[in-house]
Amino acid sequence: MTPQVILDRVRIVLCRTSHPGNIGAAARAMKTMGLSRLYLVQPLCAVDEVATARAAGADDVLAEAAVCGSLAEALAGCVHAAALSARLRDLGPVAVGVREAVGPMLAQTAVGDVALVFGNETSGLSNEELQCCQQAVTIPSNPAYSSLNLGAAVQVMAYELRMAAYGGLPPGPATQATPFVSVPAAIDDIERFYVHLERVLAQTGFHDPARPRRLMPKLRRLFARAGLEKDEINILRGILDSIEKPTGPKHRSQAVEPEEK
Amino acid sequence: MTPQVILDRVRIVLCRTSHPGNIGAAARAMKTMGLSRLYLVQPLCAVDEVATARAAGADDVLAEAAVCGSLAEALAGCVHAAALSARLRDLGPVAVGVREAVGPMLAQTAVGDVALVFGNETSGLSNEELQCCQQAVTIPSNPAYSSLNLGAAVQVMAYELRMAAYGGLPPGPATQATPFVSVPAAIDDIERFYVHLERVLAQTGFHDPARPRRLMPKLRRLFARAGLEKDEINILRGILDSIEKPTGPKHRSQAVEPEEK
Repeated sequence: MTPQVILDRVRIVLCRTSHPGNIGAAARAMKTMGLSRLYLVQPLCAVDEVATARAAGADDVLAEAAVCGSLAEALAGCVHAAALSARLRDLGPVAVGVREAVGPMLAQTAVGDVALVFGNETSGLSNEELQCCQQAVTIPSNPAYSSLNLGAAVQVMAYELRMAAYGGLPPGPATQATPFVSVPAAIDDIERFYVHLERVLAQTGFHDPARPRRLMPKLRRLFARAGLEKDEINILRGILDSIEKPTGPKHRSQAVEPEEK
Repeated sequence: MTPQVILDRVRIVLCRTSHPGNIGAAARAMKTMGLSRLYLVQPLCAVDEVATARAAGADDVLAEAAVCGSLAEALAGCVHAAALSARLRDLGPVAVGVREAVGPMLAQTAVGDVALVFGNETSGLSNEELQCCQQAVTIPSNPAYSSLNLGAAVQVMAYELRMAAYGGLPPGPATQATPFVSVPAAIDDIERFYVHLERVLAQTGFHDPARPRRLMPKLRRLFARAGLEKDEINILRGILDSIEKPTGPKHRSQAVEPEEK
Protein backbone atom coordinates (compact mmCIF):
# COMPACT_ATOMS: atom_id res chain seq x y z
CA MET A 1 0.00 0.00 0.00
CA THR A 2 1.17 3.51 -0.69
CA PRO A 3 1.44 5.96 2.21
CA GLN A 4 -1.63 7.80 0.94
CA VAL A 5 -3.71 4.61 0.82
CA ILE A 6 -2.66 3.96 4.43
CA LEU A 7 -3.72 7.47 5.49
CA ASP A 8 -7.02 7.04 3.63
CA ARG A 9 -7.85 4.23 6.05
CA VAL A 10 -7.57 6.44 9.14
CA ARG A 11 -10.77 7.89 10.62
CA ILE A 12 -10.62 10.89 12.92
CA VAL A 13 -13.56 10.67 15.32
CA LEU A 14 -14.59 13.68 17.41
CA CYS A 15 -17.04 12.94 20.24
CA ARG A 16 -19.49 15.54 21.56
CA THR A 17 -17.47 18.51 20.34
CA SER A 18 -18.74 21.84 21.75
CA HIS A 19 -17.12 24.45 19.55
CA PRO A 20 -17.56 24.68 15.78
CA GLY A 21 -14.17 26.39 15.52
CA ASN A 22 -12.54 23.24 16.85
CA ILE A 23 -14.29 21.08 14.26
CA GLY A 24 -13.02 23.39 11.54
CA ALA A 25 -9.52 23.42 13.00
CA ALA A 26 -9.53 19.61 13.13
CA ALA A 27 -10.56 19.42 9.46
CA ARG A 28 -7.75 21.77 8.49
CA ALA A 29 -5.21 19.87 10.60
CA MET A 30 -6.28 16.60 8.96
CA LYS A 31 -6.03 17.90 5.43
CA THR A 32 -2.56 19.35 5.96
CA MET A 33 -1.39 15.84 6.77
CA GLY A 34 -3.34 14.05 4.04
CA LEU A 35 -6.17 12.70 6.21
CA SER A 36 -9.74 13.13 4.97
CA ARG A 37 -12.20 10.97 6.91
CA LEU A 38 -13.85 12.95 9.69
CA TYR A 39 -16.58 11.49 11.93
CA LEU A 40 -18.60 13.64 14.33
CA VAL A 41 -20.29 11.72 17.14
CA GLN A 42 -23.23 13.57 18.73
CA PRO A 43 -21.75 17.02 18.07
CA LEU A 44 -22.94 19.61 20.62
CA CYS A 45 -22.68 22.43 18.09
CA ALA A 46 -23.60 23.09 14.49
CA VAL A 47 -21.03 22.76 11.74
CA ASP A 48 -21.56 26.38 10.85
CA GLU A 49 -19.73 29.27 9.21
CA VAL A 50 -17.33 29.47 12.18
CA ALA A 51 -16.28 25.89 11.45
CA THR A 52 -15.93 26.67 7.75
CA ALA A 53 -13.83 29.75 8.46
CA ARG A 54 -11.43 27.84 10.70
CA ALA A 55 -11.27 24.98 8.20
CA ALA A 56 -9.86 27.46 5.67
CA GLY A 57 -9.33 25.44 2.49
CA ALA A 58 -10.33 22.17 4.15
CA ASP A 59 -14.06 22.73 3.79
CA ASP A 60 -14.22 19.60 1.62
CA VAL A 61 -13.25 17.52 4.67
CA LEU A 62 -16.00 19.27 6.66
CA ALA A 63 -18.58 18.78 3.93
CA GLU A 64 -17.90 15.07 3.76
CA ALA A 65 -17.85 14.54 7.54
CA ALA A 66 -20.12 11.76 8.79
CA VAL A 67 -22.43 12.72 11.68
CA CYS A 68 -23.06 9.69 13.92
CA GLY A 69 -25.45 8.98 16.78
CA SER A 70 -22.96 6.92 18.73
CA LEU A 71 -19.28 6.08 18.89
CA ALA A 72 -20.09 2.49 17.96
CA GLU A 73 -21.63 3.75 14.73
CA ALA A 74 -18.51 5.78 13.91
CA LEU A 75 -16.29 2.76 14.59
CA ALA A 76 -18.35 0.29 12.54
CA GLY A 77 -16.03 -1.69 10.28
CA CYS A 78 -12.84 -0.55 12.00
CA VAL A 79 -10.23 -3.09 13.03
CA HIS A 80 -8.65 -0.85 15.65
CA ALA A 81 -9.56 2.25 17.65
CA ALA A 82 -7.23 4.36 19.76
CA ALA A 83 -8.53 6.96 22.22
CA LEU A 84 -6.68 10.18 22.81
CA SER A 85 -6.55 10.59 26.54
CA ALA A 86 -4.73 13.16 28.62
CA ARG A 87 -5.21 11.33 31.87
CA LEU A 88 -5.14 7.71 32.96
CA ARG A 89 -8.42 6.09 33.88
CA ASP A 90 -9.42 3.12 35.87
CA LEU A 91 -10.34 0.30 33.55
CA GLY A 92 -9.27 2.19 30.47
CA PRO A 93 -6.99 0.59 27.91
CA VAL A 94 -3.24 0.80 28.31
CA ALA A 95 -1.92 4.26 27.42
CA VAL A 96 1.14 4.77 25.24
CA GLY A 97 2.79 7.84 23.77
CA VAL A 98 1.81 8.99 20.30
CA ARG A 99 5.05 8.09 18.62
CA GLU A 100 4.96 4.52 19.90
CA ALA A 101 1.28 4.20 18.98
CA VAL A 102 1.20 5.31 15.37
CA GLY A 103 3.37 2.58 13.85
CA PRO A 104 1.38 -0.42 15.14
CA MET A 105 -1.82 1.49 14.42
CA LEU A 106 -0.94 2.07 10.77
CA ALA A 107 0.21 -1.53 10.43
CA GLN A 108 -3.41 -2.53 11.04
CA THR A 109 -4.59 -0.58 8.00
CA ALA A 110 -3.44 -3.64 6.03
CA VAL A 111 -6.53 -5.31 7.45
CA GLY A 112 -9.07 -2.49 7.55
CA ASP A 113 -9.89 0.99 8.79
CA VAL A 114 -8.43 2.32 12.02
CA ALA A 115 -9.80 5.18 14.15
CA LEU A 116 -8.38 7.85 16.41
CA VAL A 117 -11.01 9.03 18.89
CA PHE A 118 -11.04 12.48 20.54
CA GLY A 119 -13.33 13.48 23.44
CA ASN A 120 -15.20 16.61 24.40
CA GLU A 121 -13.10 19.78 24.98
CA THR A 122 -13.96 19.92 28.68
CA SER A 123 -14.88 16.44 29.81
CA GLY A 124 -12.81 14.31 27.43
CA LEU A 125 -14.08 10.82 26.67
CA SER A 126 -16.54 9.01 28.89
CA ASN A 127 -15.47 5.73 30.42
CA GLU A 128 -17.88 3.95 28.08
CA GLU A 129 -16.33 5.62 25.04
CA LEU A 130 -12.82 4.84 26.26
CA GLN A 131 -13.74 1.20 26.67
CA CYS A 132 -14.82 1.02 23.04
CA CYS A 133 -11.18 1.57 22.13
CA GLN A 134 -8.35 -0.96 22.18
CA GLN A 135 -5.72 1.53 23.15
CA ALA A 136 -5.27 4.91 24.82
CA VAL A 137 -2.79 7.34 23.37
CA THR A 138 -1.31 10.37 25.11
CA ILE A 139 0.55 13.33 23.71
CA PRO A 140 3.60 13.85 25.94
CA SER A 141 3.17 17.28 27.50
CA ASN A 142 3.95 19.61 30.37
CA PRO A 143 2.61 17.91 33.52
CA ALA A 144 1.74 21.34 34.93
CA TYR A 145 -0.36 22.25 31.87
CA SER A 146 -1.25 19.42 29.56
CA SER A 147 -4.38 20.93 28.05
CA LEU A 148 -3.91 20.94 24.28
CA ASN A 149 -6.60 22.59 22.23
CA LEU A 150 -8.64 19.96 20.35
CA GLY A 151 -7.52 21.19 16.93
CA ALA A 152 -3.90 21.28 18.11
CA ALA A 153 -4.17 17.70 19.41
CA VAL A 154 -5.57 16.55 16.07
CA GLN A 155 -2.68 18.37 14.36
CA VAL A 156 -0.02 16.57 16.42
CA MET A 157 -1.67 13.18 15.96
CA ALA A 158 -2.14 13.70 12.22
CA TYR A 159 1.45 14.85 11.89
CA GLU A 160 2.74 11.72 13.64
CA LEU A 161 0.52 9.55 11.46
CA ARG A 162 1.88 11.15 8.32
CA MET A 163 5.46 10.86 9.53
CA ALA A 164 4.93 7.17 10.26
CA ALA A 165 3.10 6.49 6.98
CA TYR A 166 5.90 8.04 4.98
CA GLY A 167 8.59 6.36 7.04
CA GLY A 168 9.78 9.53 8.74
CA LEU A 169 10.68 11.14 5.46
CA PRO A 170 7.48 12.33 3.82
CA PRO A 171 7.75 13.81 0.37
CA GLY A 172 7.41 17.52 0.57
CA PRO A 173 9.34 20.73 0.63
CA ALA A 174 11.94 19.36 3.06
CA THR A 175 13.25 16.76 0.65
CA GLN A 176 13.19 18.85 -2.49
CA ALA A 177 16.31 20.39 -3.84
CA THR A 178 17.46 23.55 -2.16
CA PRO A 179 16.67 26.52 -4.34
CA PHE A 180 19.35 28.38 -6.16
CA VAL A 181 21.91 25.66 -5.79
CA SER A 182 24.53 25.84 -8.46
CA VAL A 183 26.83 22.92 -9.06
CA PRO A 184 29.49 22.21 -6.47
CA ALA A 185 32.81 23.85 -7.15
CA ALA A 186 35.58 21.65 -8.47
CA ILE A 187 38.30 20.93 -5.95
CA ASP A 188 40.97 22.53 -8.08
CA ASP A 189 38.88 25.69 -8.41
CA ILE A 190 38.58 25.76 -4.63
CA GLU A 191 42.34 25.38 -4.29
CA ARG A 192 42.93 28.23 -6.71
CA PHE A 193 40.56 30.33 -4.59
CA TYR A 194 42.64 29.58 -1.46
CA VAL A 195 45.85 30.57 -3.26
CA HIS A 196 44.21 33.81 -4.37
CA LEU A 197 42.78 34.43 -0.89
CA GLU A 198 46.14 33.96 0.79
CA ARG A 199 47.83 36.31 -1.66
CA VAL A 200 45.25 39.05 -1.07
CA LEU A 201 45.37 38.67 2.71
CA ALA A 202 49.13 39.05 2.57
CA GLN A 203 48.67 42.16 0.43
CA THR A 204 46.26 43.80 2.87
CA GLY A 205 48.55 42.97 5.76
CA PHE A 206 46.21 40.65 7.60
CA HIS A 207 48.22 37.56 6.83
CA ASP A 208 51.95 37.14 7.31
CA PRO A 209 53.11 34.10 5.30
CA ALA A 210 56.27 34.01 7.40
CA ARG A 211 54.17 33.68 10.53
CA PRO A 212 50.95 32.09 9.35
CA ARG A 213 49.38 31.26 12.74
CA ARG A 214 47.03 28.67 11.19
CA LEU A 215 44.96 31.37 9.51
CA MET A 216 44.52 29.46 6.26
CA PRO A 217 43.51 26.17 7.95
CA LYS A 218 40.87 28.10 9.88
CA LEU A 219 39.49 29.70 6.73
CA ARG A 220 39.58 26.38 4.90
CA ARG A 221 37.60 24.80 7.71
CA LEU A 222 34.94 27.53 7.48
CA PHE A 223 34.49 27.25 3.71
CA ALA A 224 34.64 23.46 3.82
CA ARG A 225 31.69 23.43 6.20
CA ALA A 226 29.71 25.56 3.75
CA GLY A 227 30.53 23.36 0.77
CA LEU A 228 31.32 25.96 -1.87
CA GLU A 229 29.40 26.10 -5.12
CA LYS A 230 30.74 27.08 -8.52
CA ASP A 231 28.88 30.40 -8.58
CA GLU A 232 30.10 31.21 -5.09
CA ILE A 233 33.70 30.64 -6.11
CA ASN A 234 33.13 33.11 -8.94
CA ILE A 235 31.76 35.69 -6.49
CA LEU A 236 34.59 35.17 -4.01
CA ARG A 237 37.23 35.36 -6.73
CA GLY A 238 35.55 38.54 -7.99
CA ILE A 239 35.72 40.05 -4.51
CA LEU A 240 39.42 39.19 -4.27
CA ASP A 241 40.04 40.79 -7.68
CA SER A 242 38.26 43.93 -6.53
CA ILE A 243 40.47 44.12 -3.44
CA GLU A 244 43.64 43.67 -5.48
CA LYS A 245 42.57 46.23 -8.07
CA PRO A 246 39.98 48.45 -6.46
CA THR A 247 37.85 50.30 -8.97
CA GLY A 248 35.80 52.24 -6.44
CA PRO A 249 32.04 52.53 -6.39
CA LYS A 250 31.99 54.26 -9.76
CA HIS A 251 34.00 51.68 -11.61
CA ARG A 252 32.61 48.43 -10.44
CA SER A 253 33.88 45.45 -12.37
CA GLN A 254 31.02 43.34 -13.51
CA ALA A 255 32.89 40.70 -15.39
CA VAL A 256 33.46 38.42 -12.46
CA GLU A 257 30.06 38.13 -10.88
CA PRO A 258 28.06 35.26 -12.36
CA GLU A 259 24.94 35.90 -14.34
CA GLU A 260 21.72 36.49 -12.45
CA LYS A 261 19.42 33.49 -12.34
CA MET B 1 21.30 20.69 31.58
CA THR B 2 17.91 19.32 32.39
CA PRO B 3 15.30 19.09 29.62
CA GLN B 4 13.40 22.00 31.16
CA VAL B 5 16.49 24.21 31.23
CA ILE B 6 16.98 23.36 27.55
CA LEU B 7 13.39 24.31 26.72
CA ASP B 8 13.77 27.54 28.71
CA ARG B 9 16.39 28.61 26.17
CA VAL B 10 14.02 28.39 23.22
CA ARG B 11 12.37 31.57 21.99
CA ILE B 12 9.24 31.39 19.88
CA VAL B 13 9.20 34.46 17.62
CA LEU B 14 6.02 35.44 15.77
CA CYS B 15 6.47 38.05 13.05
CA ARG B 16 3.67 40.42 12.03
CA THR B 17 0.89 38.19 13.30
CA SER B 18 -2.55 39.35 12.13
CA HIS B 19 -4.97 37.51 14.39
CA PRO B 20 -5.02 37.75 18.18
CA GLY B 21 -6.53 34.26 18.35
CA ASN B 22 -3.40 32.86 16.77
CA ILE B 23 -1.18 34.59 19.31
CA GLY B 24 -3.28 33.07 22.08
CA ALA B 25 -3.22 29.65 20.45
CA ALA B 26 0.57 29.87 20.10
CA ALA B 27 0.92 30.73 23.81
CA ARG B 28 -1.24 27.75 24.75
CA ALA B 29 0.66 25.41 22.41
CA MET B 30 3.95 26.57 23.92
CA LYS B 31 2.88 26.07 27.51
CA THR B 32 1.55 22.55 26.89
CA MET B 33 5.09 21.63 25.81
CA GLY B 34 6.93 23.53 28.53
CA LEU B 35 8.01 26.52 26.43
CA SER B 36 7.50 30.00 27.87
CA ARG B 37 9.43 32.64 25.95
CA LEU B 38 7.21 34.34 23.39
CA TYR B 39 8.42 37.24 21.21
CA LEU B 40 6.04 39.27 19.05
CA VAL B 41 7.72 41.20 16.23
CA GLN B 42 5.62 44.08 14.91
CA PRO B 43 2.29 42.41 15.70
CA LEU B 44 -0.48 43.60 13.37
CA CYS B 45 -3.14 43.07 16.04
CA ALA B 46 -3.64 43.76 19.70
CA VAL B 47 -3.03 41.07 22.29
CA ASP B 48 -6.64 41.39 23.41
CA GLU B 49 -9.36 39.34 25.08
CA VAL B 50 -9.59 37.08 22.01
CA ALA B 51 -5.92 36.19 22.49
CA THR B 52 -6.47 35.60 26.20
CA ALA B 53 -9.48 33.37 25.55
CA ARG B 54 -7.59 31.21 23.08
CA ALA B 55 -4.57 31.06 25.41
CA ALA B 56 -6.84 29.43 27.98
CA GLY B 57 -4.61 28.83 31.03
CA ALA B 58 -1.50 30.08 29.23
CA ASP B 59 -2.21 33.75 29.85
CA ASP B 60 1.04 33.95 31.83
CA VAL B 61 2.97 33.24 28.61
CA LEU B 62 0.99 35.98 26.86
CA ALA B 63 1.51 38.46 29.69
CA GLU B 64 5.27 37.96 29.62
CA ALA B 65 5.56 38.13 25.82
CA ALA B 66 8.16 40.60 24.56
CA VAL B 67 6.95 42.98 21.84
CA CYS B 68 9.81 43.88 19.48
CA GLY B 69 10.21 46.46 16.74
CA SER B 70 12.28 44.18 14.53
CA LEU B 71 13.27 40.57 14.10
CA ALA B 72 16.87 41.53 14.87
CA GLU B 73 15.72 42.82 18.26
CA ALA B 74 13.92 39.55 19.01
CA LEU B 75 17.01 37.55 18.02
CA ALA B 76 19.54 39.64 19.95
CA GLY B 77 21.79 37.31 21.94
CA CYS B 78 20.63 34.14 20.19
CA VAL B 79 23.20 31.73 18.84
CA HIS B 80 20.85 30.12 16.33
CA ALA B 81 17.62 31.01 14.57
CA ALA B 82 15.49 28.67 12.48
CA ALA B 83 12.70 29.96 10.27
CA LEU B 84 9.55 27.96 9.78
CA SER B 85 8.95 28.03 6.07
CA ALA B 86 6.31 26.22 4.06
CA ARG B 87 7.81 27.01 0.72
CA LEU B 88 11.27 27.13 -0.70
CA ARG B 89 12.80 30.45 -1.53
CA ASP B 90 15.61 31.56 -3.65
CA LEU B 91 18.60 32.27 -1.49
CA GLY B 92 16.93 31.24 1.72
CA PRO B 93 18.80 29.03 4.14
CA VAL B 94 18.78 25.27 3.61
CA ALA B 95 15.45 23.71 4.61
CA VAL B 96 15.18 20.53 6.67
CA GLY B 97 12.28 18.68 8.22
CA VAL B 98 11.26 19.42 11.80
CA ARG B 99 12.43 16.14 13.23
CA GLU B 100 15.90 16.48 11.77
CA ALA B 101 16.12 20.12 12.86
CA VAL B 102 15.21 19.96 16.54
CA GLY B 103 18.11 17.86 17.81
CA PRO B 104 20.93 20.01 16.46
CA MET B 105 18.93 23.10 17.42
CA LEU B 106 18.58 22.04 21.04
CA ALA B 107 22.25 21.05 21.14
CA GLN B 108 23.05 24.73 20.64
CA THR B 109 21.21 25.69 23.84
CA ALA B 110 24.40 24.57 25.59
CA VAL B 111 25.86 27.83 24.30
CA GLY B 112 22.92 30.25 24.38
CA ASP B 113 19.36 30.96 23.37
CA VAL B 114 17.92 29.59 20.15
CA ALA B 115 14.89 30.92 18.26
CA LEU B 116 12.18 29.48 16.11
CA VAL B 117 10.73 32.16 13.84
CA PHE B 118 7.20 32.11 12.38
CA GLY B 119 5.90 34.48 9.70
CA ASN B 120 2.63 36.24 9.03
CA GLU B 121 -0.44 34.02 8.51
CA THR B 122 -0.85 35.04 4.89
CA SER B 123 2.49 36.21 3.63
CA GLY B 124 4.85 34.12 5.76
CA LEU B 125 8.31 35.51 6.37
CA SER B 126 9.85 38.16 4.17
CA ASN B 127 13.07 37.30 2.38
CA GLU B 128 14.89 39.70 4.70
CA GLU B 129 13.51 37.93 7.77
CA LEU B 130 14.37 34.54 6.32
CA GLN B 131 17.91 35.66 5.70
CA CYS B 132 18.31 36.58 9.38
CA CYS B 133 17.96 32.86 10.14
CA GLN B 134 20.60 30.16 9.75
CA GLN B 135 18.17 27.45 8.86
CA ALA B 136 14.74 26.92 7.39
CA VAL B 137 12.52 24.25 8.88
CA THR B 138 9.47 22.73 7.24
CA ILE B 139 6.71 20.65 8.71
CA PRO B 140 6.26 17.72 6.32
CA SER B 141 2.75 18.03 4.97
CA ASN B 142 0.30 17.28 2.20
CA PRO B 143 1.77 18.86 -0.94
CA ALA B 144 -1.76 19.63 -2.14
CA TYR B 145 -2.64 21.52 1.07
CA SER B 146 0.27 22.43 3.29
CA SER B 147 -1.32 25.40 5.04
CA LEU B 148 -1.10 24.73 8.77
CA ASN B 149 -2.78 27.24 11.04
CA LEU B 150 -0.15 29.31 12.88
CA GLY B 151 -1.12 27.95 16.31
CA ALA B 152 -1.10 24.41 14.95
CA ALA B 153 2.36 24.91 13.47
CA VAL B 154 3.64 26.20 16.81
CA GLN B 155 2.06 23.14 18.45
CA VAL B 156 3.86 20.68 16.17
CA MET B 157 7.19 22.46 16.53
CA ALA B 158 6.85 22.72 20.32
CA TYR B 159 5.89 19.05 20.51
CA GLU B 160 8.96 18.01 18.53
CA LEU B 161 11.17 20.23 20.69
CA ARG B 162 9.80 18.64 23.86
CA MET B 163 10.17 15.14 22.43
CA ALA B 164 13.80 15.88 21.55
CA ALA B 165 14.57 17.57 24.87
CA TYR B 166 13.21 14.66 26.88
CA GLY B 167 14.20 11.93 24.47
CA GLY B 168 17.93 12.32 24.67
CA LEU B 169 19.62 14.76 22.35
CA PRO B 170 20.62 13.35 19.02
CA PRO B 171 24.18 14.28 18.30
CA GLY B 172 24.15 17.56 16.42
CA PRO B 173 26.85 19.71 14.93
CA ALA B 174 27.71 21.26 18.29
CA THR B 175 28.37 17.90 19.91
CA GLN B 176 30.34 16.28 17.13
CA ALA B 177 34.06 16.29 17.50
CA THR B 178 35.25 18.84 14.99
CA PRO B 179 38.68 20.28 15.56
CA PHE B 180 38.92 23.98 16.40
CA VAL B 181 35.27 24.44 17.34
CA SER B 182 34.68 27.70 19.11
CA VAL B 183 31.28 28.82 20.29
CA PRO B 184 28.70 29.82 17.68
CA ALA B 185 28.63 33.51 16.84
CA ALA B 186 25.74 35.54 18.23
CA ILE B 187 23.22 36.55 15.59
CA ASP B 188 23.72 40.27 16.21
CA ASP B 189 27.48 39.84 15.74
CA ILE B 190 26.78 38.07 12.46
CA GLU B 191 24.53 40.95 11.37
CA ARG B 192 27.28 43.46 12.17
CA PHE B 193 29.64 41.40 10.05
CA TYR B 194 27.25 41.62 7.09
CA VAL B 195 26.98 45.40 7.49
CA HIS B 196 30.77 45.64 7.55
CA LEU B 197 31.13 43.26 4.59
CA GLU B 198 28.68 45.24 2.47
CA ARG B 199 30.47 48.50 3.25
CA VAL B 200 33.86 47.08 2.28
CA LEU B 201 32.54 45.52 -0.94
CA ALA B 202 31.10 48.90 -1.91
CA GLN B 203 34.44 50.50 -1.15
CA THR B 204 36.39 48.06 -3.34
CA GLY B 205 33.89 48.58 -6.12
CA PHE B 206 32.65 44.99 -6.27
CA HIS B 207 29.25 45.85 -4.84
CA ASP B 208 27.02 48.65 -6.05
CA PRO B 209 24.38 49.33 -3.38
CA ALA B 210 22.28 51.08 -6.01
CA ARG B 211 22.31 47.93 -8.10
CA PRO B 212 22.74 45.13 -5.57
CA ARG B 213 21.97 42.15 -7.84
CA ARG B 214 21.29 39.89 -4.86
CA LEU B 215 24.95 39.83 -3.92
CA MET B 216 24.34 40.09 -0.17
CA PRO B 217 21.65 37.36 -0.07
CA LYS B 218 24.04 35.07 -1.92
CA LEU B 219 26.83 35.73 0.57
CA ARG B 220 24.42 35.32 3.49
CA ARG B 221 23.37 31.97 2.13
CA LEU B 222 26.99 30.81 1.89
CA PHE B 223 27.88 31.84 5.44
CA ALA B 224 24.59 30.54 6.85
CA ARG B 225 25.43 27.10 5.50
CA ALA B 226 28.78 27.22 7.27
CA GLY B 227 27.29 28.29 10.62
CA LEU B 228 29.77 30.96 11.68
CA GLU B 229 31.62 30.67 14.96
CA LYS B 230 32.67 33.49 17.24
CA ASP B 231 36.37 33.15 16.38
CA GLU B 232 35.58 33.09 12.69
CA ILE B 233 33.62 36.33 12.95
CA ASN B 234 36.68 37.86 14.58
CA ILE B 235 38.88 36.66 11.72
CA LEU B 236 36.46 37.88 9.04
CA ARG B 237 36.03 41.27 10.72
CA GLY B 238 39.81 41.52 10.96
CA ILE B 239 40.14 40.79 7.26
CA LEU B 240 37.58 43.50 6.47
CA ASP B 241 39.47 45.97 8.69
CA SER B 242 42.68 45.15 6.85
CA ILE B 243 41.01 45.84 3.50
CA GLU B 244 39.62 49.16 4.69
CA LYS B 245 42.93 50.23 6.20
CA PRO B 246 45.65 48.18 4.54
CA THR B 247 48.88 48.07 6.48
CA GLY B 248 50.85 46.06 3.96
CA PRO B 249 52.92 42.99 4.64
CA LYS B 250 55.27 44.88 6.92
CA HIS B 251 52.62 46.35 9.16
CA ARG B 252 50.29 43.52 9.76
CA SER B 253 47.66 44.30 12.35
CA GLN B 254 47.54 41.53 14.89
CA ALA B 255 44.94 42.95 17.18
CA VAL B 256 41.99 41.49 15.39
CA GLU B 257 42.94 37.90 14.89
CA PRO B 258 41.86 35.73 17.81
CA GLU B 259 44.37 34.01 20.02
CA GLU B 260 45.77 30.75 18.85
CA LYS B 261 44.13 27.72 20.43
